[in-house]
Amino acid sequence: MLSWDEAAMMPRGGGDARGEALGHIAALIHQKLSDPEIGELLDKAEASNAELSDWQRANLRAMRRMQVRAAALPESLVRALKIATTRCEQTWRLARAANNWDAVARQLVEVLMLTREKAAALGNALELEPYDALLDGYEAGIRVIDVARVFDDLKGFLPNFLSRILDRQRDPMPLRGPFPHERQRELGVAMMRVFGFDFDRGRLDVSHHPFCGGVPDDTRITTRYSEDDFLPSLMAVLHETGHALYQQGLPPEWRRQPVGRSLGAVVHESQSLFLEMQVARSRAFMEFAAPQIRGHLACANGDAAWSADNLHAHTIRVRRSHIRVDADEVTYPLHVILRFELEQALIGAELSAADIPDAWSELMMRYLGLSTYGNLKDGCMQDVHWFAGLLGYFPAYTLGALMSAQWFDAASAAIADLDTKIAAGDVAPLMNWLHHEIHERGQLESAAELLAEVTGGPLDLRYFKAHLERRYLDT
Amino acid sequence: MLSWDEAAMMPRGGGDARGEALGHIAALIHQKLSDPEIGELLDKAEASNAELSDWQRANLRAMRRMQVRAAALPESLVRALKIATTRCEQTWRLARAANNWDAVARQLVEVLMLTREKAAALGNALELEPYDALLDGYEAGIRVIDVARVFDDLKGFLPNFLSRILDRQRDPMPLRGPFPHERQRELGVAMMRVFGFDFDRGRLDVSHHPFCGGVPDDTRITTRYSEDDFLPSLMAVLHETGHALYQQGLPPEWRRQPVGRSLGAVVHESQSLFLEMQVARSRAFMEFAAPQIRGHLACANGDAAWSADNLHAHTIRVRRSHIRVDADEVTYPLHVILRFELEQALIGAELSAADIPDAWSELMMRYLGLSTYGNLKDGCMQDVHWFAGLLGYFPAYTLGALMSAQWFDAASAAIADLDTKIAAGDVAPLMNWLHHEIHERGQLESAAELLAEVTGGPLDLRYFKAHLERRYLDT
Repeated sequence: MLSWDEAAMMPRGGGDARGEALGHIAALIHQKLSDPEIGELLDKAEASNAELSDWQRANLRAMRRMQVRAAALPESLVRALKIATTRCEQTWRLARAANNWDAVARQLVEVLMLTREKAAALGNALELEPYDALLDGYEAGIRVIDVARVFDDLKGFLPNFLSRILDRQRDPMPLRGPFPHERQRELGVAMMRVFGFDFDRGRLDVSHHPFCGGVPDDTRITTRYSEDDFLPSLMAVLHETGHALYQQGLPPEWRRQPVGRSLGAVVHESQSLFLEMQVARSRAFMEFAAPQIRGHLACANGDAAWSADNLHAHTIRVRRSHIRVDADEVTYPLHVILRFELEQALIGAELSAADIPDAWSELMMRYLGLSTYGNLKDGCMQDVHWFAGLLGYFPAYTLGALMSAQWFDAASAAIADLDTKIAAGDVAPLMNWLHHEIHERGQLESAAELLAEVTGGPLDLRYFKAHLERRYLDT
Repeated sequence: MLSWDEAAMMPRGGGDARGEALGHIAALIHQKLSDPEIGELLDKAEASNAELSDWQRANLRAMRRMQVRAAALPESLVRALKIATTRCEQTWRLARAANNWDAVARQLVEVLMLTREKAAALGNALELEPYDALLDGYEAGIRVIDVARVFDDLKGFLPNFLSRILDRQRDPMPLRGPFPHERQRELGVAMMRVFGFDFDRGRLDVSHHPFCGGVPDDTRITTRYSEDDFLPSLMAVLHETGHALYQQGLPPEWRRQPVGRSLGAVVHESQSLFLEMQVARSRAFMEFAAPQIRGHLACANGDAAWSADNLHAHTIRVRRSHIRVDADEVTYPLHVILRFELEQALIGAELSAADIPDAWSELMMRYLGLSTYGNLKDGCMQDVHWFAGLLGYFPAYTLGALMSAQWFDAASAAIADLDTKIAAGDVAPLMNWLHHEIHERGQLESAAELLAEVTGGPLDLRYFKAHLERRYLDT
């Protein structure tokens, strides 16, 4: 809640006090989790494992995971990281705006050094390679060897696929604004209701970057508005609604227990991308959404630019671009692969902070054919992650995209005439399916177990490839 | 911040999780403050008192006060009170709406029992009578004997004074709305800026009851809007701005130290009432405010209803009424005296919860000449205080009103042509005076010491009486 408030409500002057409060709370949580007494209590509970229900056993497993990760890190390192990352992130905001790498490089060196120390300590405790120990923190069970195999496949597939799309893609007719914020907000709220967002247990607000925060019974999402273009904001709302429905749908009987929480970042991204990429950017959904959009934005019904076909063409436009967060679903994995490769080198100390700009430029040219030389702002300084110490997170975006395609395939098999239903705005069967198969199961199973149970197999790239081919080449 | 959010932002469904979080934080704070180690550290620091600066010594005094009050209460009582008051307050909301005393009476019995226990334990530790120990919690040094002397004087003075006003008061010309919320908000923001509210370190939002919350560098006030009448909202904004300026003006070099906090409830109310009653409801201020009001609400300049005289008449209208929070400054003390007398009897166990409705009716008839029989909603169920366990707070409202008149008298002596300046909107000299004399001194002195130093004497009713006579009879 305090983090949501910082991003959505807090006036500038409150920053110092908030940073102190958040740091203090982080330290309290770490103290509690790493208290040896907790370890002993977990030992005792595990000794009577046979008497526990499935939910209790899963709950105990989730507690042990939290305790082991916390106990692996000395409090001095937790505090030093919090201080270094908070300062580095603040410096990054100014340095990025000024396109000035040198202004933040030294602080990044410190963050990387402490993050390597954290990765080593975690790896030691978990018997994992350091980078695997970081990946595992964002989604239990993710290993670099599995990620690399999938990403190598994508590196072979995407460049050629991308060229084929760009060859045949035509520019859609432009949508002329301005689109007042209040109208856009009403449209977003209406769409959130369509998918079942519970406004008695959540809110929609504005922040610089869209995000989903809060707790299951008070889930808060944000978006941002531009009067020139309403689609980015609407798609952000639906993306965050995907996260929010996961959170609102967690099992109420396990509130405030670890097993009652969501799985990791991969599954969470699979939920937001399910709603955004699999549903909201589908041609079927635009059949339903186009009249709603025209109604809320008060556009002329007869105008061809506002037809479902043209609106849909806007939502699936593909472009090679510099900025990850603005990328379409086809080029997005290339942005992630670049970061995945660089951060392995950073954690392995094969790459130093000083060499990031050159390494970035080289890979941007290799994977996306774009020159970023000199434009650090839209290059290696565009993402907050490394400056905030979040190494190991990026793969979750693309693994989540793959997983969302796999869920959608299973949903299509389970629900008759799914496309027809979506085109009619009848999304309840789909949302109920998500709720029962995924949301209300919390951490009862691991991500891999749940995926196998629901879709019949492990994470498989072919669903994502099939989705892309159907959407971009079958027209 | 979490309390502000609960009142201003939180969707209904978040209540349980929030209650748990707030309860847990309260318990953490109590644990820390009552830890014997803190007492020992304070002992050591006090032993070297002579080496400390005035600020350090005052800081130590403030810490000791917090520690003694916390250590006086067993954690079991703190937790039981938190649970009982949270539940009783929630029940009260529904019971009040239904005008149903019985629905909440049993829970109130429990709250009163626990509050008596708290008062006895505090009194024991502080060597005070139980009710004095509660009063002392809201403003250090306040004693029932002093309050009763002042209130007895008011009980003699006000009824006759009130009759004289009501005899000569005429109805002002009505102000016809509707007044859109957004316009009212802009007017409020403009007025907040006039008095120096720093929007880089604060916000204005909406809640059911106006309040001021947050921290010095992130001070958040709220109001509520009615499209039929803008003056209650504007006056609430200015009242809360008085609280906010105190908070924003606290000494920055003592942030997050007890001595850097504000004094108690009496001094805080004296600041809000200073801005609202002494300044904003003065004829001089309306000279400045009337054109601003007309501008923001887009009213015809020539209309006599919108003249400074008529607008001012609205702001100082006096009425006998049932509801304390809507009362004018003349009848307000009578509402407080009624509660002060009843809660002494409640803490002394001379009055039981079951007898509150009858006792209330009797005193309303005696002090305000109003019959409340049967209307419990606007009678003894109107205030949240007792249901939330806040016994001993009410006197602060009236003591604050007295104190605000005393501060204003001193300010008038210190600042040449104060009325003329206010009429010109030149309030900077007055706000600077408040800042230097009160706000930036934190808890360096006690309320009584500060008052004596700035105004030359102890709290004295004659300033308040003189203010009322000047405002209501000198026209």
